[in-house]
Amino acid sequence: MKETTEIDPAQACPIAPVVDLVFSRWTTPILWTLNEYGRQRFVELQRRIGTITPKVLTQRLRQLERDGLVTRTYHAEVPPRVEYDISPLGRSLAPLFHSLAEWSPNLTKVQAAREHFDATEPAHRRP
Amino acid sequence: MKETTEIDPAQACPIAPVVDLVFSRWTTPILWTLNEYGRQRFVELQRRIGTITPKVLTQRLRQLERDGLVTRTYHAEVPPRVEYDISPLGRSLAPLFHSLAEWSPNLTKVQAAREHFDATEPAHRRP
Repeated sequence: MKETTEIDPAQACPIAPVVDLVFSRWTTPILWTLNEYGRQRFVELQRRIGTITPKVLTQRLRQLERDGLVTRTYHAEVPPRVEYDISPLGRSLAPLFHSLAEWSPNLTKVQAAREHFDATEPAHRRP
Repeated sequence: MKETTEIDPAQACPIAPVVDLVFSRWTTPILWTLNEYGRQRFVELQRRIGTITPKVLTQRLRQLERDGLVTRTYHAEVPPRVEYDISPLGRSLAPLFHSLAEWSPNLTKVQAAREHFDATEPAHRRP
């Protein structure tokens, strides 16, 4: 990292752009669900993700398609059918998702740290 | 993943809680900078991160301290001195950061996908 006083926030650490791309709200559940269940229709995706609204799912799928992480296949049937899948580029995120999943048991330590902090904070906090 | 219609958004995929914890805005640059440069004072951290405001840095450091990912050491000197460092729990995120950094060359593919999408979108987009 360069020692300057003006650093682009996105460049403040090398992984920030990846984080911004992959971990915007709802992006992870969509990619995870496509990776787990494969090609599926909008309604299936919506049902599996649960609380996401159709509007947000539409926006996020479009964004992920534009990013090359999700493919959209249009079947010119009657009625027309649209299917979504994770792309090879999207699938290349799997090791990263794996690392994240491996770390997740540490969340209990985070919870313990929070409880300790909240219980002791007025005493140990100094100006 | 359970096949129910009501899933907590945070539970829609197993890594969402880790993502929420680690990748909230500015959290990554702070942890990255502490991991790279070790224990340092507020002003050093602020200078290295660049465009972060003192108010936001204070809030994020306090949140990270509460989460057990950052330690805060108060030296009762005149004038008092406060130093921040990444905790062992915070350091356990290093392999994850490494996975993210390894994936980052793929961002050029994302950029190419976006340019392709923007150039062809009106033609290939169907209802």
